[in-house]
Amino acid sequence: NKMQNNREQNEAKKIKNKKIVVLHNGKLFLTEAFNVIMEEILHKGTDSEEKVCEWKDPDQLRALLDLDLREHGESHKQLLQRVRDVARYSVKTCHPRFFNQLFAGVDYHALTGRLLTETLNTSQYTYEVAPVFVLMEEEVLCKLRSLVGWSEGDGIFCPGGSMSNMYAMNVARYWAFPQVKTQGLWATPRMAIFTSQQGHYSMKKAAAFLGIGTDNVFIVQVDESGSMRPEDLEAKIVQDAVPFFVNATAGTTVQGAFDPLNRIADISERNGMWMHVDAAWGGSVLFSKKHKHLVAGIERANSVTWNPHKMLLAGLQCSVVLFRDTTNLLMHCHSAKATYLFQQDKFYDTSLDTGDKSIQCGRKVDCLKLWLMWKAIGTHGLSERVEKAFALARYLVEEMEKRDNFKLVCKGPFVNVCFWFIPPSLRRKENSADYQESLSKVGSVAPVIKERMIKRGTMMVGYQPMDGHVNFFRMVVVSPQLTTKDMDFFLDEIEDLGKDL
Amino acid sequence: NKMQNNREQNEAKKIKNKKIVVLHNGKLFLTEAFNVIMEEILHKGTDSEEKVCEWKDPDQLRALLDLDLREHGESHKQLLQRVRDVARYSVKTCHPRFFNQLFAGVDYHALTGRLLTETLNTSQYTYEVAPVFVLMEEEVLCKLRSLVGWSEGDGIFCPGGSMSNMYAMNVARYWAFPQVKTQGLWATPRMAIFTSQQGHYSMKKAAAFLGIGTDNVFIVQVDESGSMRPEDLEAKIVQDAVPFFVNATAGTTVQGAFDPLNRIADISERNGMWMHVDAAWGGSVLFSKKHKHLVAGIERANSVTWNPHKMLLAGLQCSVVLFRDTTNLLMHCHSAKATYLFQQDKFYDTSLDTGDKSIQCGRKVDCLKLWLMWKAIGTHGLSERVEKAFALARYLVEEMEKRDNFKLVCKGPFVNVCFWFIPPSLRRKENSADYQESLSKVGSVAPVIKERMIKRGTMMVGYQPMDGHVNFFRMVVVSPQLTTKDMDFFLDEIEDLGKDL
Repeated sequence: NKMQNNREQNEAKKIKNKKIVVLHNGKLFLTEAFNVIMEEILHKGTDSEEKVCEWKDPDQLRALLDLDLREHGESHKQLLQRVRDVARYSVKTCHPRFFNQLFAGVDYHALTGRLLTETLNTSQYTYEVAPVFVLMEEEVLCKLRSLVGWSEGDGIFCPGGSMSNMYAMNVARYWAFPQVKTQGLWATPRMAIFTSQQGHYSMKKAAAFLGIGTDNVFIVQVDESGSMRPEDLEAKIVQDAVPFFVNATAGTTVQGAFDPLNRIADISERNGMWMHVDAAWGGSVLFSKKHKHLVAGIERANSVTWNPHKMLLAGLQCSVVLFRDTTNLLMHCHSAKATYLFQQDKFYDTSLDTGDKSIQCGRKVDCLKLWLMWKAIGTHGLSERVEKAFALARYLVEEMEKRDNFKLVCKGPFVNVCFWFIPPSLRRKENSADYQESLSKVGSVAPVIKERMIKRGTMMVGYQPMDGHVNFFRMVVVSPQLTTKDMDFFLDEIEDLGKDL
Repeated sequence: NKMQNNREQNEAKKIKNKKIVVLHNGKLFLTEAFNVIMEEILHKGTDSEEKVCEWKDPDQLRALLDLDLREHGESHKQLLQRVRDVARYSVKTCHPRFFNQLFAGVDYHALTGRLLTETLNTSQYTYEVAPVFVLMEEEVLCKLRSLVGWSEGDGIFCPGGSMSNMYAMNVARYWAFPQVKTQGLWATPRMAIFTSQQGHYSMKKAAAFLGIGTDNVFIVQVDESGSMRPEDLEAKIVQDAVPFFVNATAGTTVQGAFDPLNRIADISERNGMWMHVDAAWGGSVLFSKKHKHLVAGIERANSVTWNPHKMLLAGLQCSVVLFRDTTNLLMHCHSAKATYLFQQDKFYDTSLDTGDKSIQCGRKVDCLKLWLMWKAIGTHGLSERVEKAFALARYLVEEMEKRDNFKLVCKGPFVNVCFWFIPPSLRRKENSADYQESLSKVGSVAPVIKERMIKRGTMMVGYQPMDGHVNFFRMVVVSPQLTTKDMDFFLDEIEDLGKDL
């Protein structure tokens, strides 16, 4: 018996030692990797002298990364090299010349919140496992709602703006036809959704996913700036499908246009429709006293999507859908009341177990990064950030107008600057005979410049065709780390990349 | 003019200096916060002598956290204290005595992958902005599919298992009725979904969200162990709704039961149904030669959900849905072909722009954490991890059987251990007159013990009632950092918490 005890003690000691070694090695690796992250991404990656991306063909990159997963593990040293390689060949979205998407830059407080979130590794379903984050989500949502103009309401963080839009559509459908939750769409009349030509494609994805079908998404015309024509909305509302949902966009993806919210609200009210505002991109103008007139009327919406991971730099992903409703519609619409998770005989107020509002079960914590950043720079700092982006976009447009090589697609109200680069060989006077022909050739310029740009690695910016317009560039000014020098560089670099075209 | 130049130069210098200061402060803050994270979460949080959670009532916690967001920002020192507070009052899911959910523990390589992901801050839609991760996702999915038994196929990382299940249901619906994407459910007959009594509640959430309705989810009976009765599945298939989708569960949430996949596959084939396996929890047995018999027949499924963030410790969230299909069904079902994002005139192979397979637009990178962990310990290391959890769960059951205070709900095949704690005052012989009455009182024991446990902070474990059974505890063994001593502690602690009941 004593021998057995001894054996057990030895065994226990061995296990304990082994455990400690694993932990030590793990922590050491994490610390060394953190240093690589600081150096390779946050130091080099934010330095405008360094490349935004180190382009490799897919086959080359596959070989360089050695992606294969094998039977046995690798050494500490090899693994650290893996971290370096991933950093090296990834696009530096924090780089001052990354203009490719509607997010860019880095906010160190938000990033801190993200690392803290990852390390705490919890799920946003109950107060029990996420006490801090349940309360924090409530607070952040409340503050965002108050910027929209609502003193009450509801909301939730979702994995991205498309999901936020889907939530809004589903809650609206439940509001119009509550039987849909149990009986499905066979128990309802056909429904119609309205969104503009320039509204985000997630409306179609949502309609398909929710079983409504893309044919029941009615596309409303826009004016030249990309803003919805309310008179066309009114004309499109016909009675063979029940008009239940209109999506107004605040900040379209390409042109940065704002739909006329008050006029759309009038039409929605007259027709008994749910009005949603997809302000994923443009919502952040609510922080600016100077620019928030762009979303005048947003408080009349029933729901709003807003992505602080875009203009505010909270980091991917940080998206909310906000509701004006005060009848707990979000919970009624989505709840499944799982007894293993949402026990009703708990010792605390179970209304704090907000997870059943979600269509997810496990849900990432997305509020902390925004909260910590907000604590760090205040509402005032976020407002400055937004206004700075506007000012830089204005500067860019002014500089562009001074140069012959650039032609604006339209003057947008936001921080999107859409333009054609017209190389010397295609430059014609507007009244010249071959002006139209030359313009049509401009469409092939953007892909060529883009390829050169990526291979050179100096910057990244997107392009696309649109409604009869040939390919044009969409420059977006997001990051507060930018200066007028970066704008000048942008124009010079486009000219240089296309000088022989 | 010269004066203006001077002014501009001075302005530029000021901006440059300001920028550098901001960056320096930011990096300094991040580094200091990283040290707090290491100390407060990864050092203290994994120490079994420390608390799993520091319980505070919601009102207390609100006051302690000072959540309010104000006009102006806070000092470096205050913000660092915020980081400490968030860490302090959050549940330590990495703690060796956190048994509350189907995730636990910490893997330092996966965590490194997560911090790297957060810092790189990119979105998984195109090769252009996520070259490394597009290729890496492809590789990881391929490897996971090969464990399922498929040499070809498709798949995608989703924000959690519920979303993965929804993807499967939507793709199945599109496979059965492709017109649903454009025309909606009004163009199809009523459809029926089958899942067991013990299947995850996400099936109902999915049916509601997809417009199919929860009434069209038919609940199939289970045997005592929680495994689907295939004969009842066959009996439930009636023809007034089209049977198109059966969900088999590999590792039910509460009991850890495995549905008989081969028999369900036979029935699915006979009835022309899509067979999905929700292996969110149990999929990881595929790593173990010893235990993978539990999912025999999984290769006959059309789709599989699998969450490596559970048993493999990849970190939240890491969930995949895998498809056997080789006809690009996932893409056809979800694509919207947005021209601003998925340009077709790019200079590289645009089939690498896999983002249009998703219903999201921006999509978090979830493959890196799993890939790096896999590289670190190899397939062999992951296999050991799974087998260790099984062995510890067996040990726990054996120890439990030696003690009078515990009664197993059933002997499960997996790492879920469901049991009642029967305090001395309620202990009766099975043939005694008031045995049933005493058993029914046992249901009020778990909530009391849970409250005491959380307030003491020594450990966390979940409980729930189920199908006529009063509240019982569900212990799950997930973390590879656990030892038999932790199991002994668990039993002793439950006894201690309930000794006066």
